Order: sequence, then C-alpha cells, then structure tokens
Amino acid sequence: MELSEKLVLALPKGRILKEVMPLVNKAGIIPEDDFDDPKSRKLEFDTNIQNLTIIRVRAFDAATFVACGAAHLGVVGNDVLQEFGYSDLYSPLDLDIGHCRLSLAMPESEDSADPREWSHIRVATKYPNMTRDYYAQRGVQAECIKLNGAMELAPKLGLSRRIVDLVSTGGTLKANQLKEVEVLTHITSRLVVNRPAFKTRPSEVSYWIDRFREAISDGTTA
Amino acid sequence: MELSEKLVLALPKGRILKEVMPLVNKAGIIPEDDFDDPKSRKLEFDTNIQNLTIIRVRAFDAATFVACGAAHLGVVGNDVLQEFGYSDLYSPLDLDIGHCRLSLAMPESEDSADPREWSHIRVATKYPNMTRDYYAQRGVQAECIKLNGAMELAPKLGLSRRIVDLVSTGGTLKANQLKEVEVLTHITSRLVVNRPAFKTRPSEVSYWIDRFREAISDGTTA
Repeated sequence: MELSEKLVLALPKGRILKEVMPLVNKAGIIPEDDFDDPKSRKLEFDTNIQNLTIIRVRAFDAATFVACGAAHLGVVGNDVLQEFGYSDLYSPLDLDIGHCRLSLAMPESEDSADPREWSHIRVATKYPNMTRDYYAQRGVQAECIKLNGAMELAPKLGLSRRIVDLVSTGGTLKANQLKEVEVLTHITSRLVVNRPAFKTRPSEVSYWIDRFREAISDGTTA
Repeated sequence: MELSEKLVLALPKGRILKEVMPLVNKAGIIPEDDFDDPKSRKLEFDTNIQNLTIIRVRAFDAATFVACGAAHLGVVGNDVLQEFGYSDLYSPLDLDIGHCRLSLAMPESEDSADPREWSHIRVATKYPNMTRDYYAQRGVQAECIKLNGAMELAPKLGLSRRIVDLVSTGGTLKANQLKEVEVLTHITSRLVVNRPAFKTRPSEVSYWIDRFREAISDGTTA
C-alpha cells in the first residue's frame, strides 16, 4: 500500500463546516470549486496548496481518520475527543468556533431534583461514554441508550425521561417542552494533529498549526 | 411518566423512506402534510388513523425505538437487525424493498486472494459486530475501524485496505476504484414489532401486520 505523501486535513460536514471555512481560508488554504457544491459526492478535494488535500467527513469520523493517521490534521469538537479518548490525537489549538454545550435535559413538567441526590438514571444520548463517566464520578449510575439523532423524542415516547444532548441556543429543547438541568461540558472545535505525524513531519505540521493560530488572532482583532 | 396510548410507527429517514411510503399508504396510513416537507424539523407526525403516529428517525435509531418499546412497529433493514441483535424485536414481514447487500471491497489494483486463505484483516465499516462475527466463523480475525460514512476514503488514505459497506448498484465502489470481493449478507427492509407490544396489544399489532402484508401482495400483482 502506497502511503500518500500529501498532508490530509479532515473537516467535519454540516454546521461546523460553515464556521471553520473562514479560518481555513485565512490560514491560506483554498479548496477546489467542487467543495462548495453541497450535491457533490466527492469526498477528497485538492487545494491551492499542492501538498495538501481536504476530506469532508462526519464529525466522529474526522477524529477517527486523524487518530489512525489517515489524515494528519483535522477539526474536531472536544465532545468527540472526550467521547472516544483517542491516545494518538494531539489537540494544540482551540479554534474558538462551534460553541455549544453537552447538557442533561428532562421534561419541563417534571421535578428536577438536585442531580447530587440521584443514584441511578436512564439516559438517551449520542455520548454514552462521556455520560457514564461524568455521572460515575458523582456516584450516579447512568444507564445509556445510544441514539444517533432525534434525542428529544425519547422523553416524549417514554424511552427515557432524560437525555444528554448538544445544546446551542436551547431552542430545540424549548420546542420540545424540555429543560436544561445540568451542563456536563462546554464545547468548542479544536485543531487536532495525529501525534506520530507531528513527530515524523514536524516542520510541515507546525507550519499549519502556526497558520491556524494566526488565523484565529486575525479574526479576533478584525 | 405517562405512556402514550397511541401506536407509534418508526420509519427510517433517507433513501428507504421513499420506497416505504407507497406501502405505508397502501396499508391505509396517510401522514399529515408536514411529513413531506424535508425542511420540517418535526419528528413525530399524526396520521389519518387517530390511534397511530409516525416518527421519522435514523435507520439505526428506528430499531432502538422499537426494541425498547418506545415505538411499537417499525421498518428496519436486516443489516441493522443483525448488527445489534436486539432480543425484543420480532420481524414478521419482509417488505421486499431497500434491496442491497453488505459486501467486502478492496482496491481494484490489488490481488484479492481467496478470502478463505486470510487469517487477519483490517476493515473500515459501519458494521463492526457483523463483520467480526462473519469472519470469526470463517477463522479470520477482523480488526474493525468504525466509520459512520465515507468508507471509500479508507483504502485511498491508507486507513485500511478493505471496507465492509452497503452496496446497491456498485457505482460508488467503481467510482472509487474499488471491487466487490465477497457478499456478507443480502439486505431488505422488514416490518418489525416490539415483542412485548405484540403480547399486550395483539389485535392492534396483528391488524397492522396484516395491512402491510396485503400492501405487499397488492404491489407485486399491480
């Protein structure tokens, strides 16, 4: 198997992509035209930098590609970093985008007794590891039902009274008569680096970390 | 927690939904207008049947909702049934839609020695359980890297030479210079039923199984 000499940057599809592209551009990277076509089925894109390509994958997969060394750099939320705990991911830079929080929510109509008094909870979540760990540290056993989306249906249909989900404005919770009871963690997107790549190609990887660092400070002074 | 008296039918978002709706309609179920609006953020829909609502969720989640009894009926591919092996899912009816197969693929350029001669493989897949089980039965140890999409990138970027992925026409594989080496299983969508619901509400659940059975035979004679 021939390993690509190119550096690969893994970006997450969806909401975060819109926030990250201004930074990518400021860092000096312009992807080929197809990249802006939401209907394109292409997965890998050339850029104006001869030695750098971009892949556009799901948020969880961006972390996997970088952790396994198939991508060298990536943009990953610390929700994903914490959920999977990959040892080969180095996260040198907070990009200050993708702000949200991972929170426990339950129906507005129910009594939200102090979380410290709970001993066992049943929770629907996309983040079973983080949820279990967070509550285990507080002496609460969290039984998790893994869902990939539509968490808000769980309390409505009696799957679980509680959910642990990403919350941004809180509008979705409100629309579903749910209230935010407890914040498990605050989330932003990070620039992540494959740790072995950082050792074997230090000058290239450092170069791009520096470009992204400049792009961020550029943004805050603008 | 008040349990809904309504029967809940869980349908999968995306490609399968288009194939399943003619059957749902033939079975006598017409969802409210919003259902056809792809931009609607609604998750639960009333129907012309006073006692029946539809939820539209991801394919994996449809199985989870029915397995846990939060939905009573659902449409689920046997890929999902096999991957998760839920004990409380009863699958009485093959809907004869959503035909595809779960296959092992690798780069066209590589020698695809007889799978029976392998002893260890590294595979990127959305179906780690099925992949491990399938190869374990053949004496092959499959080391799986879980991806949620974009499996075709894995061989290209050196994540794994092999992938196990859903194949329909084979067009995506071909476009990525991959060849189908071995079919793990053939897939269709099934009508599934929550097993306890089948015991506690037998006449209602049987009624809908019969309506779907009629809808299928209606389709084949049309």
